[in-house]
Amino acid sequence: MAVRAISTLLVCTAALLLAVVVSPSAGLSLDTVREFLTREEDTIVFSLIERARYPLNRPAYDPIHLGDGDGPGRRLNASFAELFIRESEAVQSKAGRYQSLQEIPFFAYRVPFTLAPPYNFTRELYPAAAFVNVNDAIWSMYFNELLPLLAKNGDDGNYAVTVDSDIACLQVLSRRINYGRYVAEVKFRGDQQTYTSLIQAKDRDALMKLLTSEAQEDAVKRRVEKKATVFGQSVTSDGPTETGVNNSSETNFKVDPSLVYKLYDQWVIPLTKQVEVEYLLHRLD
Amino acid sequence: MAVRAISTLLVCTAALLLAVVVSPSAGLSLDTVREFLTREEDTIVFSLIERARYPLNRPAYDPIHLGDGDGPGRRLNASFAELFIRESEAVQSKAGRYQSLQEIPFFAYRVPFTLAPPYNFTRELYPAAAFVNVNDAIWSMYFNELLPLLAKNGDDGNYAVTVDSDIACLQVLSRRINYGRYVAEVKFRGDQQTYTSLIQAKDRDALMKLLTSEAQEDAVKRRVEKKATVFGQSVTSDGPTETGVNNSSETNFKVDPSLVYKLYDQWVIPLTKQVEVEYLLHRLD
Repeated sequence: MAVRAISTLLVCTAALLLAVVVSPSAGLSLDTVREFLTREEDTIVFSLIERARYPLNRPAYDPIHLGDGDGPGRRLNASFAELFIRESEAVQSKAGRYQSLQEIPFFAYRVPFTLAPPYNFTRELYPAAAFVNVNDAIWSMYFNELLPLLAKNGDDGNYAVTVDSDIACLQVLSRRINYGRYVAEVKFRGDQQTYTSLIQAKDRDALMKLLTSEAQEDAVKRRVEKKATVFGQSVTSDGPTETGVNNSSETNFKVDPSLVYKLYDQWVIPLTKQVEVEYLLHRLD
Repeated sequence: MAVRAISTLLVCTAALLLAVVVSPSAGLSLDTVREFLTREEDTIVFSLIERARYPLNRPAYDPIHLGDGDGPGRRLNASFAELFIRESEAVQSKAGRYQSLQEIPFFAYRVPFTLAPPYNFTRELYPAAAFVNVNDAIWSMYFNELLPLLAKNGDDGNYAVTVDSDIACLQVLSRRINYGRYVAEVKFRGDQQTYTSLIQAKDRDALMKLLTSEAQEDAVKRRVEKKATVFGQSVTSDGPTETGVNNSSETNFKVDPSLVYKLYDQWVIPLTKQVEVEYLLHRLD
């Protein structure tokens, strides 16, 4: 009887572990996904405001400025920014940042994961599709399109602090956009029949159409623009309202709110939907 | 004549270089100092809001959780947080972050400064007093006093992301508080006679009194509290005002505004003045 009790306990424990590790439904719903995405907007706006504190600091992004003699830049044909981001990500990898599937590095690492206390993450994504990400497109968009619009021309020499603020922007944009995998997983579970037939037909256009809600996208774009006006204003202690909002028309925002609108309109939302479609195309693998 | 022209040019260039490197007055004034400190308030509030996204995640701060076998935590008797902060700072040191006197690491590094493009920073501080900082007090205040009030109890396993947000808080608090060196330098220059006699008499109390303006400190504390209400609110796209402020009384702020008031009242302002006094006591060395 004792043996049976123990073996029952073992089976229960195994089932519980399986439920925690494999169960794809734990905690994931349309509400939690929306809440996460809405909260990420604040982090994105904060990170853009912080990057905009510093001038463009072009030498940090230009390979030739590391090109003297046999420096590391010359050998790798890389900019300071790229080298710094690689080394920062390697430390974060060692610290276990990428143990969570929500986080995806821009560079691949073979750093042993040695530093952090262990933790059993629930795996909410379908394993064969979890790898999907558009980090290369985010990298290119950030440095080639967004950054020149975000940072004023100038060079104050604070390259490490500046690129550190680039890392914060890149990390949150990557997490937000690649969270499309979670969005797609929730939507798939909500209507498995429709999605399954479209996935089997590899019908990208129909999937994209099914994933698109223009009214909701409009609301998101207007909201992030508003967040840029609220979080990027100069707050004084003698403001007119309890929340200290400066209603004067000459307010200078730290980041142009229309740029944040554009960021979502042209890049964040389209790239997220691209992630959703790619994820779904691997959802039955 | 050509030789004289060249040597004149060389003398002028040397004088110009000397002016750039040594001149203690370039760009530093009461206005620029105040502007810097006011802007840092936004960064501090943003960083606190970001840290408050994550639960306390206690295992990240507890040495025993790294204590199995011969792990690095056991050998160093350090927590994950400390190890991660050390390694992150080492990369930042290699990237030249601490070439700027505005930035001071929490740990000393002998990492060769190899990564960043060179830049000649102006040196606005008096060299013999520039080393003054209270990073040990900031470290202890942050982990022992502030963090338990800032983060909700809980453990979601995201230790690397969590401690990364601690690093952002620590770095900006350190930069803000140790900026007292610049404040003291400006005040010293504005009234050299008075300060010189107090410094020579090593009269800490009189220096502290001379540096204190209660009215101004009150305004700062009220302003940072207001910033926490503005930046920590939930912004919707259908808000009543152009800047999207939610005036409803049930607003839940992401960080308790009274905690930000307390942070400045009990720690930021007193520690800054401690830095100012210490800097001044070395200002004639």
